[in-house]
Amino acid sequence: MDITELVPDLLTYLGQAAYFELGMFESLSTAVITAPTLAAKEGLSLAAGRALSKHHGLIEEIRRRDGEPASVMGPFVPALDNFRAITAGEDWQELLLSCYLTGGLLDDFFIRLSDALPGDVGPRIAHLLGEHGGADVLLHEIAAAIAAQPALESRLALWGRRLVGDTLLVARSAMAVTQDSRIEPVFTELIAAHTRRMDGLGLTA
Amino acid sequence: MDITELVPDLLTYLGQAAYFELGMFESLSTAVITAPTLAAKEGLSLAAGRALSKHHGLIEEIRRRDGEPASVMGPFVPALDNFRAITAGEDWQELLLSCYLTGGLLDDFFIRLSDALPGDVGPRIAHLLGEHGGADVLLHEIAAAIAAQPALESRLALWGRRLVGDTLLVARSAMAVTQDSRIEPVFTELIAAHTRRMDGLGLTA
Repeated sequence: MDITELVPDLLTYLGQAAYFELGMFESLSTAVITAPTLAAKEGLSLAAGRALSKHHGLIEEIRRRDGEPASVMGPFVPALDNFRAITAGEDWQELLLSCYLTGGLLDDFFIRLSDALPGDVGPRIAHLLGEHGGADVLLHEIAAAIAAQPALESRLALWGRRLVGDTLLVARSAMAVTQDSRIEPVFTELIAAHTRRMDGLGLTA
Repeated sequence: MDITELVPDLLTYLGQAAYFELGMFESLSTAVITAPTLAAKEGLSLAAGRALSKHHGLIEEIRRRDGEPASVMGPFVPALDNFRAITAGEDWQELLLSCYLTGGLLDDFFIRLSDALPGDVGPRIAHLLGEHGGADVLLHEIAAAIAAQPALESRLALWGRRLVGDTLLVARSAMAVTQDSRIEPVFTELIAAHTRRMDGLGLTA
C-alpha cells in the first residue's frame, strides 16, 4: 500500500518524531530517578539512553537539512507535552507501562511512515527507531512488578487500554491527511502490535 | 608523586565513580526536564547523554571483572544520594552550576586517581571521564543566564563557594586513606581547577 500522501513533509516528520523521543527520554529519566531498586535504575538507564540516541539521531537529520532543532520541534511542544502529562500515570508502574506501550506504538508508527520518506533517510530512521533494547528492560521490569504484586494486573490492564486511545490520537495528528481510506489499515497494524505487547504481559487488551 | 596508596581497590573505585556518574545523569535529566527553553533542553540533553555514557562505560568495567553493578555501587548510595540532595540547588540555575562545578571537580578527581589503577584500566577511564562535551553546554547556559539576569552573579558565586566544600568531602571519602601528606597536593590541584571554572564564569571563588 502506498502511503506517500499520508506522510507530512520531511522536516515536519522529523520535528515531531524528535520531540516525541525527547519526551520519551524525559519520562524514562523520571523512571530512573524514581526507581525502587538500584538494579531497576541501572536497567532503565539503558532504556533512557536508547531514547536519547533516537532523539539525537533525528536531530542530526534535522541539522543535515539546515533545520534549527528548536524551531523544527517547536510546533509539536504543546500537544506532546500534554500527551506526556496525561500518560504519566499515578505511580512508577503506570509510568513504565506508559513508556513501554506509547513508545512501542509510536516508534512503530514513525517507522511505518518512514517507508514513504524521500531519499535515503527512511531506512536510516527505521533502523534508528527499530533499536528495541530499551523495550526489553521495560518488559522485564513491568513483568517483575506484576509477579510481585498480582493485584497490579487489572489496574495496569485498564491503564493500557486507556493509553492506546490517546496514543493513536498523536499518531493521527502526525498524518498529512486525516480522512483517507489508507489510514485505517495502518492503524489496524499498530493496534495489533499493541495487543501483542499487552498479551506479552498477560494483560487483556 | 606516587598516589598508589591513596587509591582504593579497583571495584570500590569503579562502584563509587559509576554511582556518581549515574547521579550526574539524574541531575542533568532533571535540568533537561525543567529547562526554560527548547534550545536549552536540547543542549542539556547532550550533557545528560555524556554523563550516561560515562556511567555505562564504568559499568562495563565492573562487569568485565564479574562485578554485579548494583552490589558494587550499593555502598555509595547513601552518601552520594545525600550529596546530590544538598547540591541540587533552589532553582534551575543553581542546579546547572552544581552540575558544572561538582561534575568538573569529581571528574578531575577520578581521572587523577585513575593514574594509580592497576593494568590498562586507568587510561581507558581517564579517556572516558575526560569527555568534556557536556561541560561546554553547561558553561554556555550558565553564562547566558548570568548575562540575562546580572543579579544572579552574586548568588551563584556564593553557591559555587558552598558547593566546593561538600564536593571535596566526597573526594576525601573516596580515598583509601584520609591522613597522608600526599593528599593535600591532589586537593590543591582540584581547587585550582575549580577556581578556574568559577573565573571562567566571572564568579569570585
